[in-house]
Amino acid sequence: MKLKVYADRMSQPSRAVIIFCKVNGIEYEEIKVDVSKRQHLTPEFADINPMKKVPAIVDGRFKLFESHAILIYLACAFPGVADHWYPADLFKRSKIHSVLDWHHSNLRHGAVTYVLNTTLAPALGLPLNPQAAAEAEKLLSSSLSKIESIWLKGSGLFLLGGNQPTIADLSLVCELMQLEVLEEKDRTRLLGPHKKVQQWIENTRNATRPHFDEVHKVIFKVKEKLQVQRLKGASNDGTESSMKKPLLSKM
Amino acid sequence: MKLKVYADRMSQPSRAVIIFCKVNGIEYEEIKVDVSKRQHLTPEFADINPMKKVPAIVDGRFKLFESHAILIYLACAFPGVADHWYPADLFKRSKIHSVLDWHHSNLRHGAVTYVLNTTLAPALGLPLNPQAAAEAEKLLSSSLSKIESIWLKGSGLFLLGGNQPTIADLSLVCELMQLEVLEEKDRTRLLGPHKKVQQWIENTRNATRPHFDEVHKVIFKVKEKLQVQRLKGASNDGTESSMKKPLLSKM
Repeated sequence: MKLKVYADRMSQPSRAVIIFCKVNGIEYEEIKVDVSKRQHLTPEFADINPMKKVPAIVDGRFKLFESHAILIYLACAFPGVADHWYPADLFKRSKIHSVLDWHHSNLRHGAVTYVLNTTLAPALGLPLNPQAAAEAEKLLSSSLSKIESIWLKGSGLFLLGGNQPTIADLSLVCELMQLEVLEEKDRTRLLGPHKKVQQWIENTRNATRPHFDEVHKVIFKVKEKLQVQRLKGASNDGTESSMKKPLLSKM
Repeated sequence: MKLKVYADRMSQPSRAVIIFCKVNGIEYEEIKVDVSKRQHLTPEFADINPMKKVPAIVDGRFKLFESHAILIYLACAFPGVADHWYPADLFKRSKIHSVLDWHHSNLRHGAVTYVLNTTLAPALGLPLNPQAAAEAEKLLSSSLSKIESIWLKGSGLFLLGGNQPTIADLSLVCELMQLEVLEEKDRTRLLGPHKKVQQWIENTRNATRPHFDEVHKVIFKVKEKLQVQRLKGASNDGTESSMKKPLLSKM
């Protein structure tokens, strides 16, 4: 029975899992769980993941959620996956765990909270929260500085000085790709100071093409839609009510 | 060269790592990094962990931070560690990863933010934030409900239905032990509805005694001090200035 991946490509950890499967030739069936339509809250999906979040997988009788746990499982369960993604070497593997653990409360928390409270909240029926966005920006900026100065400090192409990507590169870069939906001035302010981070995003994209671009198409479509709406908004009364519906229908 | 563990026993992930070493007979040297004295921010400690957080370990030439990554490393690097802590079986191991990943943004985020903003902030020179505490309480309560209804739903003594503890039990229970410093009415309100969670804390304590109690002594001393100060506070003008200094000197 084929691996089932329950995912919404608007979710960055979902994208990481899908790209990983595609790059490594893992046969899978993608089952869309549309978060904007609250499909993750249905009893059917709760049976797959009782935490009601995407992504989740079902492999035969085995169910699993949390994207980092899924990436590790896939790297171990499918013999075709190259060692560099999740090396058997204990020291290398432990450093990858350390990056992935750090990710949760730092880069991820900062990026998700910032993007939600500056951009995506209205499309999910939530209010924008400028104070939460300001606090999240501090965490996001400090996380980017740390990635740049600690894990990208050498001459390697990827985190921890590697010349081939690991699951940590894929997970963290997919997280950062959500910044594409921000206003250009905000994105430039956040990423501009971090040249190595920018190059690392590009390196990860290059190492996982064409799948990286294909799976991120949805993000670029939303980016385009938001840009058009911002231009329209600038030339009319500036209320946001006109933004909400088209974005929702897209998501 | 002996394993070095850089830790502050007031930090719940530090306690998890120390208890793990003790229970498994791992020889180690504990190096105190006093967070209340900002010792984690020194250049010397930044050389151990550039993220400036406890715990961190040095094992020969190998340095590692993030407690979950450390627990996994120790379980793999020290052959004396029993398999149940971090099973070699891929399916069991993956479920443990899933619990540990979930922990970061749910139980941990809720518990740390709640305890800080109701109780510990003044001792760290920070203001209490009732709004942040109220939001954290929601996340903490919902996290406790999920642990109770999902991972403790069977008749096993530990998470995921096990009859022996894993590193996930140790990590999450150490997180919950910080609730001991709360006012009793708050702790009862939070933990009272979750009978299985209460039993699981006790089971984890029993499985790791006497080390669990010894390593948590510091928490019970702070609890006692805070109780005395609350009683004193209730019988004088009620300002908090009298609470701050004695607690700091203890921490």
